Amino acid sequence: MKQSLGVCYYPEHWPRSMWESDAANMVAAGLSWVRIGEFAWSRIEPQPGSFDFAWLDDAISVLSDAGLRIVLGTPTCTPPAWMADKYPDMFAHDARGHIRGFGSRRHYCFSHAGYRAEAGRIAEILGDRYGRDPRIHAWQIDNEYGCHDTVLSWSPAARDAFRHWLAATYGDTDTLNTAWGNVFWSMEYSSFDQIGLPNLTVTQPNPSHELAFRRFSSDQVVRWHEVQVDALRARTDAPLIHNYMGRVLDFDHFDVGRSIDIASWDSYPIGFLSDRLEASPERRAQYLQQGDPDMQAFHHDLYRAVGRDGRWWVMEQQPGPVNWAPYNPAPLPGMVRLWTWEAFAHGAEVVSYFRWRQAPFAQEQMHAGLRRPDDAPAPGLDEAARVAQELSEMPAVEQVQAPVALIFDYPSEWAWATLPQGADFSYFRLVLDCYRALRRSGLSVDILPSSARAFDGYRLVLAPGIASVPDALFRALGDRSVVFGPRMNAVTRELTIPDPMGPAVPELDVTVTRVESLPPGTRRAVAGGGAVHRWMETLEGSATAVISDLQGAAVLVGDGTAYYLGGWPDPELWKRIISEIAPNAGLDVSELPPGLRIRDTKTLRFAFNYGSEAVEYNGETIPAAGVTWWPHQPMDCA
Amino acid sequence: MKQSLGVCYYPEHWPRSMWESDAANMVAAGLSWVRIGEFAWSRIEPQPGSFDFAWLDDAISVLSDAGLRIVLGTPTCTPPAWMADKYPDMFAHDARGHIRGFGSRRHYCFSHAGYRAEAGRIAEILGDRYGRDPRIHAWQIDNEYGCHDTVLSWSPAARDAFRHWLAATYGDTDTLNTAWGNVFWSMEYSSFDQIGLPNLTVTQPNPSHELAFRRFSSDQVVRWHEVQVDALRARTDAPLIHNYMGRVLDFDHFDVGRSIDIASWDSYPIGFLSDRLEASPERRAQYLQQGDPDMQAFHHDLYRAVGRDGRWWVMEQQPGPVNWAPYNPAPLPGMVRLWTWEAFAHGAEVVSYFRWRQAPFAQEQMHAGLRRPDDAPAPGLDEAARVAQELSEMPAVEQVQAPVALIFDYPSEWAWATLPQGADFSYFRLVLDCYRALRRSGLSVDILPSSARAFDGYRLVLAPGIASVPDALFRALGDRSVVFGPRMNAVTRELTIPDPMGPAVPELDVTVTRVESLPPGTRRAVAGGGAVHRWMETLEGSATAVISDLQGAAVLVGDGTAYYLGGWPDPELWKRIISEIAPNAGLDVSELPPGLRIRDTKTLRFAFNYGSEAVEYNGETIPAAGVTWWPHQPMDCA
Amino acid sequence: MKQSLGVCYYPEHWPRSMWESDAANMVAAGLSWVRIGEFAWSRIEPQPGSFDFAWLDDAISVLSDAGLRIVLGTPTCTPPAWMADKYPDMFAHDARGHIRGFGSRRHYCFSHAGYRAEAGRIAEILGDRYGRDPRIHAWQIDNEYGCHDTVLSWSPAARDAFRHWLAATYGDTDTLNTAWGNVFWSMEYSSFDQIGLPNLTVTQPNPSHELAFRRFSSDQVVRWHEVQVDALRARTDAPLIHNYMGRVLDFDHFDVGRSIDIASWDSYPIGFLSDRLEASPERRAQYLQQGDPDMQAFHHDLYRAVGRDGRWWVMEQQPGPVNWAPYNPAPLPGMVRLWTWEAFAHGAEVVSYFRWRQAPFAQEQMHAGLRRPDDAPAPGLDEAARVAQELSEMPAVEQVQAPVALIFDYPSEWAWATLPQGADFSYFRLVLDCYRALRRSGLSVDILPSSARAFDGYRLVLAPGIASVPDALFRALGDRSVVFGPRMNAVTRELTIPDPMGPAVPELDVTVTRVESLPPGTRRAVAGGGAVHRWMETLEGSATAVISDLQGAAVLVGDGTAYYLGGWPDPELWKRIISEIAPNAGLDVSELPPGLRIRDTKTLRFAFNYGSEAVEYNGETIPAAGVTWWPHQPMDCA
Repeated sequence: MKQSLGVCYYPEHWPRSMWESDAANMVAAGLSWVRIGEFAWSRIEPQPGSFDFAWLDDAISVLSDAGLRIVLGTPTCTPPAWMADKYPDMFAHDARGHIRGFGSRRHYCFSHAGYRAEAGRIAEILGDRYGRDPRIHAWQIDNEYGCHDTVLSWSPAARDAFRHWLAATYGDTDTLNTAWGNVFWSMEYSSFDQIGLPNLTVTQPNPSHELAFRRFSSDQVVRWHEVQVDALRARTDAPLIHNYMGRVLDFDHFDVGRSIDIASWDSYPIGFLSDRLEASPERRAQYLQQGDPDMQAFHHDLYRAVGRDGRWWVMEQQPGPVNWAPYNPAPLPGMVRLWTWEAFAHGAEVVSYFRWRQAPFAQEQMHAGLRRPDDAPAPGLDEAARVAQELSEMPAVEQVQAPVALIFDYPSEWAWATLPQGADFSYFRLVLDCYRALRRSGLSVDILPSSARAFDGYRLVLAPGIASVPDALFRALGDRSVVFGPRMNAVTRELTIPDPMGPAVPELDVTVTRVESLPPGTRRAVAGGGAVHRWMETLEGSATAVISDLQGAAVLVGDGTAYYLGGWPDPELWKRIISEIAPNAGLDVSELPPGLRIRDTKTLRFAFNYGSEAVEYNGETIPAAGVTWWPHQPMDCA
Repeated sequence: MKQSLGVCYYPEHWPRSMWESDAANMVAAGLSWVRIGEFAWSRIEPQPGSFDFAWLDDAISVLSDAGLRIVLGTPTCTPPAWMADKYPDMFAHDARGHIRGFGSRRHYCFSHAGYRAEAGRIAEILGDRYGRDPRIHAWQIDNEYGCHDTVLSWSPAARDAFRHWLAATYGDTDTLNTAWGNVFWSMEYSSFDQIGLPNLTVTQPNPSHELAFRRFSSDQVVRWHEVQVDALRARTDAPLIHNYMGRVLDFDHFDVGRSIDIASWDSYPIGFLSDRLEASPERRAQYLQQGDPDMQAFHHDLYRAVGRDGRWWVMEQQPGPVNWAPYNPAPLPGMVRLWTWEAFAHGAEVVSYFRWRQAPFAQEQMHAGLRRPDDAPAPGLDEAARVAQELSEMPAVEQVQAPVALIFDYPSEWAWATLPQGADFSYFRLVLDCYRALRRSGLSVDILPSSARAFDGYRLVLAPGIASVPDALFRALGDRSVVFGPRMNAVTRELTIPDPMGPAVPELDVTVTRVESLPPGTRRAVAGGGAVHRWMETLEGSATAVISDLQGAAVLVGDGTAYYLGGWPDPELWKRIISEIAPNAGLDVSELPPGLRIRDTKTLRFAFNYGSEAVEYNGETIPAAGVTWWPHQPMDCA
Repeated sequence: MKQSLGVCYYPEHWPRSMWESDAANMVAAGLSWVRIGEFAWSRIEPQPGSFDFAWLDDAISVLSDAGLRIVLGTPTCTPPAWMADKYPDMFAHDARGHIRGFGSRRHYCFSHAGYRAEAGRIAEILGDRYGRDPRIHAWQIDNEYGCHDTVLSWSPAARDAFRHWLAATYGDTDTLNTAWGNVFWSMEYSSFDQIGLPNLTVTQPNPSHELAFRRFSSDQVVRWHEVQVDALRARTDAPLIHNYMGRVLDFDHFDVGRSIDIASWDSYPIGFLSDRLEASPERRAQYLQQGDPDMQAFHHDLYRAVGRDGRWWVMEQQPGPVNWAPYNPAPLPGMVRLWTWEAFAHGAEVVSYFRWRQAPFAQEQMHAGLRRPDDAPAPGLDEAARVAQELSEMPAVEQVQAPVALIFDYPSEWAWATLPQGADFSYFRLVLDCYRALRRSGLSVDILPSSARAFDGYRLVLAPGIASVPDALFRALGDRSVVFGPRMNAVTRELTIPDPMGPAVPELDVTVTRVESLPPGTRRAVAGGGAVHRWMETLEGSATAVISDLQGAAVLVGDGTAYYLGGWPDPELWKRIISEIAPNAGLDVSELPPGLRIRDTKTLRFAFNYGSEAVEYNGETIPAAGVTWWPHQPMDCA
């Protein structure tokens, strides 16, 4: 399928008189898709049971008539005021017990049965009306599940649903007490009705209790989501999409993705660097107007795994300064184009800009669009049009399996968020560090879930930080090169310590007998260069030490195929590990210039310069914020 | 009117046997005024409806007989415990919904009608008794409105009053929905009873909603205040005063000031530097025992504008270490005198020290007075007495219009606090930076409200950061030299983006097409020296660039008369801007030594050395913490 | 009594089949004591009134049969879920008013009468069953009072009890109003029922109000505690113990200690440095795997004073990494032995490790034990066994009175926590700084309460920061060398300023006329070296200045016997003060190498190297984390 561009549009925000010119301007800029409707409940159903579809029918006609393909969103992330009147208990509560009420968006608790039914009802009504309408080429369900920390809710509705979930999961309280080790502080229950949510405790709650609540909370998102999936599936054959938000980890995206057709995500590179990534002040300054060079690619690769058959989009692409980060600089000229091409290089079918025109009101009035609030073109529009032009001049970009696989596992994020042991231990950060090291070495990467069982063609697999590894995964990996650890199989699925203790890598005699978390600034230097920081394990067993620290303690052990890494490497040590293992796995690696990243597709190599200075690479000068590509035959992975 | 000194005194805190000697000592120190009564409700009305005026009558007699003029305060900022029993719902709530209850002071919600009536009642009773008493030379209403963040209240009483205010302001919900852009996230209301306060939302509330709440909250202060004004006006001809607190910005002081006669404020220079000002650690260390060199003067100039006919006092002057800042060092010897003279140089009629004697109990027991708790003189007393002696040896200090006007606009503070776009964007800080630059250049400044329409005599006007400029202001400014911006006319009064976009300076073709907020440490260097930090605008239009950045983008545009500034200058750039514009406006400017500030009155030039080292100026050596003055004829501004 | 070792053990956490081998392994390692039972309520009384003692009887038999002496804990810090069902209002509330509910431990309010009675009931039942059982050699009541900030509770139960306490303390509200200075802001009460807890006020509550609440809260702990003391005293002759937690200061340990026999405390050196001590990043790095060199010794000396007749234990000794600090590194090899010997050198009868085996579940699953979760020996076990061996080869370590006494006074901690005046003013920190300076000078120290009246034998007494000194203490100190101050007698017991003002040292003419708190980085250099930081007093009077600042202001005044210190010394100034005064008091002092500390017993001098490098001392090389001792005759203090 040929890549294409789209845009998010809100006809309900603008006078009817502007719609035709808007649509014409979209087409003129080379856009093919337009997403509408996802915040418009109060206009579709102004009063309970009283609908106004005239404006929406009209908008669909105008847009479609101009040649645009429409993605129609269900408006369930913005229940109207009358809904709050009807269900005053529909809101999530924060961990302190305060209601998170009406007045912005996402003001609902995933466990509230009444509102869940209402969400299904509006999906049915929209499906009835537009499900067979050929102008609607895809559906978006809700918007950015979990954004604004909305997965975990400490509401009465959540508490009651949690009790039911526990009863269904454990059957009886004795089983639960044993699974959680509730004997520890006399925390044993004799009735599920005694079990509260794991907040407002005197000190830390039982980690098993908290992890159960996190698993439950993820399940509640899936359950909530599938009500709408069911409503729409019965009414349309168009693909169903959800737009995930960057670094939202409180629910399992693979589980949500299972019932729909296309994964999409919302890519705000500059906002993410400012608001959602750990970075030194120097690094923040270096990429201030570009975003982190690996954050977007990581998510692209992640959602290629989440999407059915690898289908994924960028549903919202930052087109200029945003409004929601602590500081909101503008992208360097060229970055909008770079981000767009990077998404295509990683397999996006569609990149859709958010939004067409900057709204002059409400929460996002300072969020740039492709056009200014006064309808003049904004700087992003030219860059989008240039991409459209470039797309038109070349064949479709075709994906190819990467030589390296990296496993990403949401339950591991929950496990380590619950039991970090070191204040800055973050599973996501660990995996992103690993991903960054692979890309700095010039490798293209596929991300896979821990449920993956087909690894044919991968020369190297990395599996950092997986809390509990299914035996079947070990079997599936067979005898290919794999780097496990740190913190692998350190706990059971109930977040207790297994016996025997981990990592339990088959045929590798290594046991983690002790762990240490290290404060910022503390490093354990490694013989030959690099260091471990943040997390250090004591490894025992007969497995061969490949890399050791200055005291001779093993940091990386392995047998030439399976490796176990007993610490959190700094960038230099990551580089050494990859340099050590990749060649044996038949991979060529070479350090890229800082800020440069490459991505190989079936016939092309793309290069992206996130730096603010030009770099030389492959005989070319790639300017700051520049992107280039050339024919390239990736290595044969079959 | 000749300047004079006063003091705050609490006869109810001390044995009757000390009153005569206290009064005599005040007079001996050269004090003329004494403020009493503003915290004494529990002694005036120990039980509801049961009054004890004997002690107050006695105190008034003792003080007046000694020759002191009395300011009598209404005690409404400290409702007694029985009031809390009577109105258990009279308290403000914080933004998390917690009651802010009895046990300190300012424990009332401005929207509680019952307590508002009680405040009017006690004002009437005091007015009936003392309104025509010639010993009472002035009245203070309440105390430090808004101190301890008490303007914004999220109580049920505030919510109900807000709904009434909205109904009165907008008439119907359709109008409100349109004004706020509530369509944005289906936030449309069909009844005012659906509208809550803008707290406890999932993410940011609609900025228009929040700004309306801020406007409402300011109006509630005014309404609350005027109940007492009305009570006293009917009963006294003495001037009415309120004592504002430094950098309290949550209500419009011009609006409160409109109904009373004299503005006063409470000046705690060292506490402010520690607790209420942004400053680097180096700067905090440099002025640790002096306070910021511009903070006091700024407020002096502000309250000269707030007070009717320019009448203003310092009602509370720091006389030694305070108790309420994170750290509480002592003033350098000389600073109490310096602060006092600085107030007089800026036009204060009275400077009144807080307090006569350090209280040995309760919240402020570590707050210095002019006397120690054991009644020995504290260091501040000698400095006050020296000022009194100096005053007696010279004629009154007479004010003269300054050559430069700076506009200060409370609604702009609320607008940018609501929609900062950069985490450290503060309107107050922006204006103070501008004020500081003017004073570093040796200029005396008048502060004016945005409602000012008479600018005769001003050679230069600065108007940074005004969110919404009335057209009439532009007209009133005529063709004098004015520097507008940054962030001028960037929003409507409803906090939406206007079309056409700002700044809409008449006859200056410039549009702000994009804005960027920049994190600390990021600067955009300007050609010729200096830089923009924190805030950078993209300026388009044919207006001439006067100063540009290194990439050639205009930072300051203008036509020789009207200028628009598209960013937040660092100190060096501020200096360049003033150096660029002031001479054309007929002003002489020259950089003062660090820590030195001057102020011109009708016949004198005062110089204040906030530094901790002596400086040379105008042929004199001014010691650390020193103040001096000499005859000076300011330029003719007529 | 010969020193011995013990361990904390939870038979209810492990299969019955492991108990015998566990007991045998304990004995084999040289352990003599085992503490059990203190978290096991849900196993002892699974349902209200329904008991299961079989397992506990069995465990006692197994352990005792192996030769271990048993400490039996009352399980009152972990009330079971059914208790929470029975008393839904039994929980503490935090200062924001949120319930601190079931799900971890210490989930009770000390003021809840119903739960207090239940705690007495279970103590009676345990006492009835095991009080005369000779295998139970000691009892532990509850566990770590005050841990997790549980002394101060803002619950309805606490509020009601506080009103009763106030009525009993003050008799009538007039007395209370006068004592607190409630006239200050019209805070006068006419009924005790008007008095709330000092939280949720608009600004700071009356410090006298807050201090009363702190005194009340400490009294509530004592009252709660004594219910169990009474229950057990009637049923056993075995000694009663409580295990205090490090730097828990919200109740008076001397008051709790009065009714029991042995003080014990829980020593987690590495956790404390990370979580409970102020330190620069450099210092944290320096002692990352050792803990602060003075924190443990301070508590050892403190609990020697708290325990009746100087009897004290370490009930829980860190044996490896813990789980509860922000970062949790491992101890350097040797530190477990060092910590153990340090406790014995300071007089511990027993050092008991926490815990026998790392639990594989629940909150502390990452907390090391002497054995790993898989039952293999952990590194601490060998070190414990080595100490056991060393103990067996030498006679008992006998204590001797130290030449220096340091006074520690819990109410002073409350006073300065309530009225710090400088944000970082901490009484504990001040005393620890003083203690550190004494030990850096090679001195052994006894800590005494402010109620001490017998000072025979002490050559030097230090009494920093005592808020209110009883005259009897002055009399008891007689004419020995004493260093008082800073901030001594600065307030009355009601937290008001006395008249005459402090410090009121008999026969020393000095008055503190003004105080200043100084921000971090600010220092007032002292003539001759060193500086005052954080806190500086202005001293007036005829007392001789011994040390003055660079401006000539006295910092230390004295008459050769009594000294008053008017500031918070930095380490260099502390050293100078001790060097100045100690020789006159007949004490030899010499600066120890950094990280080295010594402790003199009746016949031995112990040296402990907390450093990570070997040091030379007394002709010996003491390795990193090393401990050594040699015969030594301390000076005669009789």
